[in-house]
Amino acid sequence: MGAPQVKARTTHGRRVTGQKVLITGIDGYSGWPLALHLLARGHSVVGLDNFVTRKRVREVGSWSATPIPSWPRRQASVREVLGKELGFHSGDLGDYEFVRRVLAEEQPDAIVHLAEQRSAPYSMIDVHHAVDTQVGNLTGTLHLLYAMKEACPGAHLVKMGTMGEYGTPNVDIAEGFFEVEYRGRKDTMPFPRQAGSWYHWSKVFDSGDVMFASRIWKLRTTDVMQGVIYGIRTPEITDDRLLTRFDFDETWGTSLNRFIAQAVLGLPITPYGKGNQRRGFIALEDSMQSLRIAVENPPAPGEYRVLNQFDAAYSVNELAARTAEVAAELGLHPTIEHPENPRTEAEEHYYQPVHDKLVALGYRRSRELTEVVREIFRDLRRYRRRLESRRHVVEPTVRWSSADSRPALDARSPPRSAPAPDAPASGTTERSTA
Amino acid sequence: MGAPQVKARTTHGRRVTGQKVLITGIDGYSGWPLALHLLARGHSVVGLDNFVTRKRVREVGSWSATPIPSWPRRQASVREVLGKELGFHSGDLGDYEFVRRVLAEEQPDAIVHLAEQRSAPYSMIDVHHAVDTQVGNLTGTLHLLYAMKEACPGAHLVKMGTMGEYGTPNVDIAEGFFEVEYRGRKDTMPFPRQAGSWYHWSKVFDSGDVMFASRIWKLRTTDVMQGVIYGIRTPEITDDRLLTRFDFDETWGTSLNRFIAQAVLGLPITPYGKGNQRRGFIALEDSMQSLRIAVENPPAPGEYRVLNQFDAAYSVNELAARTAEVAAELGLHPTIEHPENPRTEAEEHYYQPVHDKLVALGYRRSRELTEVVREIFRDLRRYRRRLESRRHVVEPTVRWSSADSRPALDARSPPRSAPAPDAPASGTTERSTA
Repeated sequence: MGAPQVKARTTHGRRVTGQKVLITGIDGYSGWPLALHLLARGHSVVGLDNFVTRKRVREVGSWSATPIPSWPRRQASVREVLGKELGFHSGDLGDYEFVRRVLAEEQPDAIVHLAEQRSAPYSMIDVHHAVDTQVGNLTGTLHLLYAMKEACPGAHLVKMGTMGEYGTPNVDIAEGFFEVEYRGRKDTMPFPRQAGSWYHWSKVFDSGDVMFASRIWKLRTTDVMQGVIYGIRTPEITDDRLLTRFDFDETWGTSLNRFIAQAVLGLPITPYGKGNQRRGFIALEDSMQSLRIAVENPPAPGEYRVLNQFDAAYSVNELAARTAEVAAELGLHPTIEHPENPRTEAEEHYYQPVHDKLVALGYRRSRELTEVVREIFRDLRRYRRRLESRRHVVEPTVRWSSADSRPALDARSPPRSAPAPDAPASGTTERSTA
Repeated sequence: MGAPQVKARTTHGRRVTGQKVLITGIDGYSGWPLALHLLARGHSVVGLDNFVTRKRVREVGSWSATPIPSWPRRQASVREVLGKELGFHSGDLGDYEFVRRVLAEEQPDAIVHLAEQRSAPYSMIDVHHAVDTQVGNLTGTLHLLYAMKEACPGAHLVKMGTMGEYGTPNVDIAEGFFEVEYRGRKDTMPFPRQAGSWYHWSKVFDSGDVMFASRIWKLRTTDVMQGVIYGIRTPEITDDRLLTRFDFDETWGTSLNRFIAQAVLGLPITPYGKGNQRRGFIALEDSMQSLRIAVENPPAPGEYRVLNQFDAAYSVNELAARTAEVAAELGLHPTIEHPENPRTEAEEHYYQPVHDKLVALGYRRSRELTEVVREIFRDLRRYRRRLESRRHVVEPTVRWSSADSRPALDARSPPRSAPAPDAPASGTTERSTA
C-alpha cells in the first residue's frame, strides 16, 4: 500500500522493518495516527484500548471537534482505505492477567505505550482525579513491565512521557541524563524532575519505574519526553474516516487547540497569565515520525534511553499571535486576552532543552507550525457546529490552587441554542465520540 | 510524668511544646515509640492505623520477635504506665472521606506520616506486591495532602521517606537540593533520585507529590530521608508492655536485625554479595529525637524541607563484624558467610551523604551502635523461642532479578519442631502479633 521500501537492517539484533508493534491506547489522539503510520511503513500493528478517553472527555461535557467513529468502524476503515489488517484487544492495563496474556499471545517486537491519562488539568480537578491519574498511569506501566519480563523480555518498550517532567529550570535541560560535578567529584545522573501537575508527576514516576526495570531485568526501553503535539493530520489520514481526535475543552485541549477553537468561535484567544511560559512543540506527523524512528532503532538490552521529542520551543504568547495571524488571513477578527492563570507555574523563565538524539537517528522536521495551524483552521471550520455546541467548555474552571474544582466545572452551562452535552448533535458516529 | 520542661517558643508561628500531633501508622515499628516519646515531651498524640503491617508480616509466615499486644492493650498500657491518653482512629488512608474527617475533627498541629509499606523485598515479591506498595503509599500521601489542604492547611506534614531515594551516586549526596552548574548556567535543583526497589521508588514518588503540594497550596512540609533504624528500645519503653516490633525475616527485617537473629539462632551471619554496600544508619531513640525536632521546628508555609536523617554510615560487612563481636562477647560462636546477592545493587560504591540540618536544629547522637547491638541481643535472647519457631524465614528467597518470587517464598518450610506459622506459640498476645 505505497509503503516506502526501506532496506531491512538490524540494530541490536532487531528488524528495522516488518516489526510487530503493540500500541496501547490505539484509540487515542496519537495512538491512532501512529497505527496508520506504522502500517504504511510496512510494520504490523496490534492495538489495545479500553476507550476511557472517550468516556473522560464526555465526563467533562466535551467531545472531539472531529467526529470519531466507533472502534469497529475505525478498524473497518483501515481495511477499506489502507487494505491493511489491524489487530486489537479490548481491555484495561489495570488487569494484569489481561496484559500478560496479550503480550504472551502477540509476542510483539515493540510496545508503544500511550495508554495513560494525558491531561494535566483533568488530574487537577479534585483528589479523586489526582489519585486516579497517578494510580492508573503507574499501574499500567508496572503491569506492562512485569508482563514484558514474563512474556516477551526481548521486546522494546517505547514509553510516552512528557517534556513537562523536567519543569522549567534555570539551566539547559539535558536529554535524560547529565554530568554532575558536586563537591569535587563527578557522576552521570538523571536530570532532576520538577513537574507541574499530578499528571506530569505521574510521568516522572513512570520514568523511575521504567529506568529501574531496565536495570534489574535488562529490558530495552525508550522513555519519550514528548513535547506538546499539534495538528490533526498525517499523510496517512487520506479520508475523513481516518481522522484523529481534536480536543479543545479546558482539560483535554492543548493551549494551541483552545486558541484555534476560540478564534473559530469568535471568542477571545486567552493565553493564561503573562503568556511567556515556553514549552517544546512538535507536529503530529513529526511525533509519529519520531516514534517510528525510536521503534526502528531499539536500544540494547538493559539500556534505558531517554529522547527529548520536540521540534521547537514557543511561548504561549507566540502561539496566540500565530493563531491570530492565521485567523486574520481567513477573514476572522481575533482578539487576545490574558485571564488570570489557573495554573501555578512560572510565567517568565529560561527554557533551553537539549534535543539531539532523534536528529542523530535521522529525524527531520516535515511540518512548519503556521502551515499546520492553517490546516487545523480548515478542518475546524468544517466541524464548526460541533465546536459551537461545546463553546462553554473552553474557558478554564480547574484551578491548581483549589483542592476541588469539580463544582466550578459542573456549573458551566451549555449555550441555550446548543444540544445538551450528552445528546448526539448529528450523525451516527456521535454516540461513540468524546 | 517526668517530661523535661522545655520553654515554649514559636517557630514560624507554631508552638514548640504542647503540640497536637497525629501519627499515621502509630501501631508500627517507629510510630509506636514516637507516640511514647512525644507524649513524654508534653505533646498530645492521636494515632491512626489499619494494622496492615501485622497482617503482611503474617502473610510471609513471620512475626515480631518481641510480642506485640493488641491495640486496645497498647492503648491501655500507655494509660497505666505513662498516665497519658492516646487518641486513636482505626482506618485506612486509602479511604479519603475517613482521612478528611479525622483531620477536620482533630485539627492537628503536625502530622507525622509513617503509614506506608516499608519493605523493599516485600515490594519485590511479584507484580501485585509491587503495585500494592506503590499505589498504597502514593494514595495515602495524596489523600493526606488533599485532606490537609481542605481541613487543616496550616498543619505541618512530616513525611517519612528514605535515604534509599538517592541510591549510591559517585558524588556526595546533597540534603534534598543542590546547586547545579550546567552549560554555563546555575540553578538550585532537587538532587536526582535513583532508588533501588519498587518500595524505594514509591518514596521518591511521594517526595515529588509532597514538594508539588507545598508549592501549589503553601503547605508546611518536611520530607525525612530516613536512614536504616536499629534498636528496640527508647527511654520511654520502661515496661515490656511498651515494646515495639522487632522484625527479622528476609522481607521485614533490616540487615542488622537479620544478622543478630542469625547469631542468636546459631545460623551463619549473611551479608549479601561482597558486603561493601554502605548505608546511613540511626538508632531508634535518635530517629525519634530527630522526628520530634522536626515537629518542634516547623518550616514556613509553602516550604518543602528535606532532612537527611541518619547518624553514621556503615557497610553491611561492618554490621556483620560488629554483630559477630558482640555475639562472641556473649559466648556465641558466630560465622559469617556471603551468599549471592538477591538484590540488584552496587556492592562497591562511594557513599557520602550530607546530613547537617538536624544537627543545626539541635540533634545530638545519644546511642552508639555497639551499645544498641548489645541491648538487642539481650532482648532477643529473652524471646529466643519466638525466633526459633521462625528460623526458616531469615534466608533470602525474594530476588530482584525474578518477576515472581512467590513460589520460592511459599516453598520455605518451618522447622519440624516448631509450631506452624499461624498457630500461637505462647500466651494471649500472640494472636495479634505479626
